[in-house]
Amino acid sequence: MTDAESSRIIPPTPAPDDDHTISPDVWGFRDTGFTILPNGSVMLTGSRYALSGSELPDLLPWVRSQLGIDVSPSDKHEPAYPPAIPPARANERFLRAIREILPVDAISTDPIARLRHGHGHTLDAMYSIKYGCIERVPDLIVFPRTTEDVVAIVEAAAEFDVCLVPYGGGTNVTDALRCPADEQRMIASVDLRRLNRILWIDPVNRMARIQAGAVGRHIQSQLAQYGFTIGHEPDSVEFSTLGGWIATHASGMKKNRYGNIEDIVLDVHVVTARGELSRPNVAPRESVGIDPRRWLFGSEGTLGIITDAVVKIFPLPEVERYDAILFPTFEKGVSFLHDLTREATPPASVRLVDNLQFQLSQTLKPKATGLAAAKRRAEKLFVTRVKGFDPSQMVACTLVYEGSREQVAGEERAVSRLARRHGGMRAGSENGKKGYQLKFGIAYLRDFIMKHYILAESFETSVPWSQAEALCANVKRRIAEEYAARKLPGRPFVTCRITQLYSTGVAVYFYFAFHHKGVNRPADVYAELEHAARDEILKSGGSLSHHHGIGKLRSGYLPRVFSPATMEWAAEMKRAIDPSNVFGIANQ
Amino acid sequence: MTDAESSRIIPPTPAPDDDHTISPDVWGFRDTGFTILPNGSVMLTGSRYALSGSELPDLLPWVRSQLGIDVSPSDKHEPAYPPAIPPARANERFLRAIREILPVDAISTDPIARLRHGHGHTLDAMYSIKYGCIERVPDLIVFPRTTEDVVAIVEAAAEFDVCLVPYGGGTNVTDALRCPADEQRMIASVDLRRLNRILWIDPVNRMARIQAGAVGRHIQSQLAQYGFTIGHEPDSVEFSTLGGWIATHASGMKKNRYGNIEDIVLDVHVVTARGELSRPNVAPRESVGIDPRRWLFGSEGTLGIITDAVVKIFPLPEVERYDAILFPTFEKGVSFLHDLTREATPPASVRLVDNLQFQLSQTLKPKATGLAAAKRRAEKLFVTRVKGFDPSQMVACTLVYEGSREQVAGEERAVSRLARRHGGMRAGSENGKKGYQLKFGIAYLRDFIMKHYILAESFETSVPWSQAEALCANVKRRIAEEYAARKLPGRPFVTCRITQLYSTGVAVYFYFAFHHKGVNRPADVYAELEHAARDEILKSGGSLSHHHGIGKLRSGYLPRVFSPATMEWAAEMKRAIDPSNVFGIANQ
Repeated sequence: MTDAESSRIIPPTPAPDDDHTISPDVWGFRDTGFTILPNGSVMLTGSRYALSGSELPDLLPWVRSQLGIDVSPSDKHEPAYPPAIPPARANERFLRAIREILPVDAISTDPIARLRHGHGHTLDAMYSIKYGCIERVPDLIVFPRTTEDVVAIVEAAAEFDVCLVPYGGGTNVTDALRCPADEQRMIASVDLRRLNRILWIDPVNRMARIQAGAVGRHIQSQLAQYGFTIGHEPDSVEFSTLGGWIATHASGMKKNRYGNIEDIVLDVHVVTARGELSRPNVAPRESVGIDPRRWLFGSEGTLGIITDAVVKIFPLPEVERYDAILFPTFEKGVSFLHDLTREATPPASVRLVDNLQFQLSQTLKPKATGLAAAKRRAEKLFVTRVKGFDPSQMVACTLVYEGSREQVAGEERAVSRLARRHGGMRAGSENGKKGYQLKFGIAYLRDFIMKHYILAESFETSVPWSQAEALCANVKRRIAEEYAARKLPGRPFVTCRITQLYSTGVAVYFYFAFHHKGVNRPADVYAELEHAARDEILKSGGSLSHHHGIGKLRSGYLPRVFSPATMEWAAEMKRAIDPSNVFGIANQ
Repeated sequence: MTDAESSRIIPPTPAPDDDHTISPDVWGFRDTGFTILPNGSVMLTGSRYALSGSELPDLLPWVRSQLGIDVSPSDKHEPAYPPAIPPARANERFLRAIREILPVDAISTDPIARLRHGHGHTLDAMYSIKYGCIERVPDLIVFPRTTEDVVAIVEAAAEFDVCLVPYGGGTNVTDALRCPADEQRMIASVDLRRLNRILWIDPVNRMARIQAGAVGRHIQSQLAQYGFTIGHEPDSVEFSTLGGWIATHASGMKKNRYGNIEDIVLDVHVVTARGELSRPNVAPRESVGIDPRRWLFGSEGTLGIITDAVVKIFPLPEVERYDAILFPTFEKGVSFLHDLTREATPPASVRLVDNLQFQLSQTLKPKATGLAAAKRRAEKLFVTRVKGFDPSQMVACTLVYEGSREQVAGEERAVSRLARRHGGMRAGSENGKKGYQLKFGIAYLRDFIMKHYILAESFETSVPWSQAEALCANVKRRIAEEYAARKLPGRPFVTCRITQLYSTGVAVYFYFAFHHKGVNRPADVYAELEHAARDEILKSGGSLSHHHGIGKLRSGYLPRVFSPATMEWAAEMKRAIDPSNVFGIANQ
């Protein structure tokens, strides 16, 4: 075998990412969004997704029945975007230094860009920028082109007392990018997305070194050209970056096969207020005492700027297959999942939706006509009449298999056997594939319904097996109670799904929506209700977050999960290694 | 499913460990050790191991031929154990406080115990206590019975300025337990082994909470009574503790199936100078921002005292099988291993020894007579004459399979196919089992040969695939060069094996031995040679350590692997969270 360097492939530098294809005020690409057609059907515009371009006649009626509100297409909550953007503060000495480091096209004070760099995709952010206001945003955006640029920027910030905020995809859902309102210093957003190269691919050692600003979809497409994948596929993969994944301690949908971010990343290169964290070699695994590079995982922009990382890469799988299994009840589905972890190797991705999400997925099916419609009716009759599934109880499990032919065959056999044991019925690979890909389209739903006075948000947790079902029930019950106690309109819509499996428990993802027309300060009402939900999650033995992280949204809960000494350790470490708080985004 | 607490099993408190069964001055149990019989055969006394009680006629002759020295059984380097033990320092206020916390039988100033608590099992430690001296040892040993005891001890140490050193199995091989010679404060060793309970076992959530002083072999036997294993099986498992595993960032021989310590441990409870790191619930996996509890991994006693941890547990495997495969050359063996990681799921444990270790393993076979001897000769002829294996090149791969019948069958098929591709020949499960279990007996060899003027030590690294073979060759070459340059007697014995596989590389374990009669300051000469080896390892792209850690032995190399800012971060964090250096063992 040759030495590491001679076996490496140096891919070409990718074309610069065109940020203008992405909407600044809602999730996703500009060319895609839900709209209501004159005939009352809903459609996802554009042609990016499997779901795009199909008429969806059942969605609106279903939403109305769920919320108990007669949602009218013409009744729109018109957004006033952009809100007033606070004037930019200028630290002249820093600005002069920056102009020595970067060319003019790598520096921006554009107000819309400043606004965008000051928020993520929490409900609060999405609502505030359209219907409210935002107190503080970055005063400047810089676009370093190299690690050396980043080093110079950090040195200048430290010297001239400027607050730096690393920026990747801006997709966090924890208000991690919200600038502290009381930050008196100039705030510069460091947009990493020009550090987007795959520096090298090493096929012999199955590693790659990738810059932190590389966006997930580009990493995937470029690695695929060489027959590899990074294996990390969060729901935000189209927009989020490697640096963001590390900083949020992310999880990907196929972690059963590839691991979570802490399993995939071998080494990080970080620019800090005290210099660079770096090393000359990468080890498959090592014991080197206290390792500060691991502190960056989950650090959410508070410790430094990650500029690149060495990650494991995996050959593209020989086989990729989808499947969907219907279960008569959520309880049976959970028992199936539990046995799957105990008696078999779970496939790459396994998700179980509850009945409401199953119903939602049915409304996101295009209108079927003729033979297709007849077939669908027959399927439905078969499931309900012949197999005796109750449409108000049944749930669906979506599976994605990746691997060698033999491995996948083994996994499928085990799934079949266990599904039968728990009364499951295969719904076919086409349903499985559609179910898996739905997630990319569904992400556009929240911003669409916001324009119709419906607030919706997701939140998640992880919990041991024995408490999973009770946690789901408790959260639904608590939200309903809090909603009724506040005499809010109609009914709340609360649904959950299990999105990740571990031998020790699961990750649970909730959606919560309600119609707020006539409600005073609806975003605050939402926040109270989510707070109650999180309280119930913690009381039910769930964690603060499986993968979204803490940001500002959940920092208030940390004393419930960390002892005082634990919190002191974190605060003391931050003070020690960043004494002038250069990285002052104030998360956690 | 029921809530977590109602599904838990509370095992009975184990009998107190009898430390007197363990040798204080050499590795292992008192009832076991190598000895030379009148007829020149070597034998492992006692009856603990598969190897015990068998005459081994070939070992001594082989050692002589390897070292080029006529090692005589009567020529013994008589040890003078114990060395002079420095008088105990007494901090009276601390002692008074301790006597309020602990009963008399939980406090010791016994000199031999103090000595033992001041060293591990490096060559330097083993040599110094027999043929040299030791500058500083703990002045006191305390044996807390509960976490509350530990809290009180740490508070007293902080109040009265005493240095605390956590102690588990005392099996480190990095001089981690060596007390700083210039430590003026009283040093109290906190022996954790009375915190040895499995607090609860949770079969539904596949977790257990175990106290940090529980020793590996007891954890295994107690969990097995309930049908579980922790999966972590380092070579030191008979003596090392859960707390020690965490503090050294340990790896176990079956990590392919169960993961390394960082994969197995879900939560740690730590007593620190600022209070306890603890939390109310355990999550399967979570994103909670900066998580100080992870800093304890690899902290080697410098940050606090781990008192218990929640770990994953696994059901005992349905099937456990051994195998051994001979390969014509080390190179072919490595290629086999590489393909195994790329094309299959490696079995629970896979190790490849080089030719010298293969020869050594042959000398550790009991004398065969009659039919068994004939059979062995026939096997040897078959391998060498019929299959054409060169006895001076051939190597052996030992495999351990664990899992379901189906999974193991699949792994065996893959191994067979790949072994054939690389010219491998199955040597049978009996050879596999013996090969795997040899490691427990071999651990006694080093201390035995030390009594005959032979110094021997192991050291290890991890390295990407592409550099693995070159690293092995470079290290062997470098030691030979340095040995010849110093005109040392006979020849150095250097051998290596690959002990762990990753998709990105391997762990490599070296043994190095030489005969030192007539050599001035042999332990120092050894240290120089190991230093040269480590230099060569680093230059060849290997890590400082795969799993042994840093301690004092390798702290000098940290600047070669960590940038200055990385080292500052570690130092600043330590200063911030333990400002009066209560945990002053000064590792890393």
